[in-house]
Amino acid sequence: MKPGLSINLATIRQQCTLPRAIEVCLRHEVGGVAPWRDQVHAVGLKEAARLVRASGLKVTGLCRGGMFPGATPEKRREKIDDNIRAIEEAAAINADCLVLVVGGLPENSRDIKGAREMVAEGLAAILPEARAARVALAIEPLHPMYAADRACVNTLRQALDLCDTLGEGIGVAVDVYHVWWDPELAEQIARAGSRLLAHHICDWLVPTRDLLLDRGMMGDGVIDLKGIRRMIEGAGFRGSQEVEIFSAENWWKRDPDDVIRTCIERYNTVCCA
Amino acid sequence: MKPGLSINLATIRQQCTLPRAIEVCLRHEVGGVAPWRDQVHAVGLKEAARLVRASGLKVTGLCRGGMFPGATPEKRREKIDDNIRAIEEAAAINADCLVLVVGGLPENSRDIKGAREMVAEGLAAILPEARAARVALAIEPLHPMYAADRACVNTLRQALDLCDTLGEGIGVAVDVYHVWWDPELAEQIARAGSRLLAHHICDWLVPTRDLLLDRGMMGDGVIDLKGIRRMIEGAGFRGSQEVEIFSAENWWKRDPDDVIRTCIERYNTVCCA
Repeated sequence: MKPGLSINLATIRQQCTLPRAIEVCLRHEVGGVAPWRDQVHAVGLKEAARLVRASGLKVTGLCRGGMFPGATPEKRREKIDDNIRAIEEAAAINADCLVLVVGGLPENSRDIKGAREMVAEGLAAILPEARAARVALAIEPLHPMYAADRACVNTLRQALDLCDTLGEGIGVAVDVYHVWWDPELAEQIARAGSRLLAHHICDWLVPTRDLLLDRGMMGDGVIDLKGIRRMIEGAGFRGSQEVEIFSAENWWKRDPDDVIRTCIERYNTVCCA
Repeated sequence: MKPGLSINLATIRQQCTLPRAIEVCLRHEVGGVAPWRDQVHAVGLKEAARLVRASGLKVTGLCRGGMFPGATPEKRREKIDDNIRAIEEAAAINADCLVLVVGGLPENSRDIKGAREMVAEGLAAILPEARAARVALAIEPLHPMYAADRACVNTLRQALDLCDTLGEGIGVAVDVYHVWWDPELAEQIARAGSRLLAHHICDWLVPTRDLLLDRGMMGDGVIDLKGIRRMIEGAGFRGSQEVEIFSAENWWKRDPDDVIRTCIERYNTVCCA
């Protein structure tokens, strides 16, 4: 068993339903999984909860809540309601955290400052529900290339400033893909401390052929994975490293057993500090 | 004449040599141009200098120096020598500044901190030459999606920290494409003050289909161009807005007169604060 390795199930999403993904992960003795909500919905929440409980796998996160900005108060309210459902789902499957991709600009807007205010309001609205359900919220700062359409929180500093304002019950998910370039990475990881809730891994390919779906397997790109892991452990995080790879033209086309086998091999050789 | 508008000649690089590009810009009465070194080399430095002088156009910058990191001291020395030639060229064509794209990781390296140190060393090595030639150096922070292969200086804060260390004769080029997402944009532009040497414009398209060659025409994307111009003017910059669009599938395929006509129209409607 690899207790320090978790598989985010986006990594084999084209090949596997939730039951099949769990089966593959168990066969290769990884320690945890992180499902996506659509994968949970496809089998139903109750059955998903039963499956992960029966598997004995750690659930290192549920992906994902967030997407707070909206052009009207009604749209923003709908998003808050959806996040509250996501919190219930995260509680039901006993996830370590609910990962939040906060959302980008509302339709036809160029006001990124306004979008960021909507994010702060959305987070404040759902945090009491998360606390009551004992679900930790993990803001995932996304790479600046997603600022317009996926997340207007783009640095760890920015995410931690939000956490400072919001108080208990909220922290960050550090995905190396989004933050590896940040000149302030070391200092902001140290600042995060006990608010580090998840550590996602993959690699940045050179060249990168698609903004969303061309992430690399660990070791195939330029990210100093051991170096970042050292920073994260230095800040006190003892959780798993969770492999999350969106790869339309490569890993999503391969046999899922091969994918997980490669994840384990690379985890052992290039990820552990 | 549009004295506040300059055309970076990358915008029509597929269609025009330097003489033809200058001719098109003069026909549409734009106020300035910014050529690339390969465009200058193609006609020869002397002829390029004669052409721009005869045109009466302002030269808002020469693109580009930089690319400092290298795997060996010899490679880094070659790059410094090339930058010194670039300084001479900028002086010869009377450019307002030499734009520096500082370079990414050296071959086979994952050490971005090391690359950043090589950049600082390279800048320190060429700055005396630039001062002697009275050529202002403009560090252009590039979008974090280029951190690996084009520039490991990725925020204005980082560029200005370098300027603070280096002293007189060096400032920044602010290209909206690279910095629009930055949560610290307003404060760092204010901090830059008289070190603002160039203001490049274009737009961020949603979706963006290519990391390098899918920039949008002003108004076609999500960047708040007037808002950023207000910040830049607020910091005291009175120079031109320089249109720089890399667009393999759209603007590079169009008639250059149409391109420049559109630049002018958009400059008038969406860029001026």
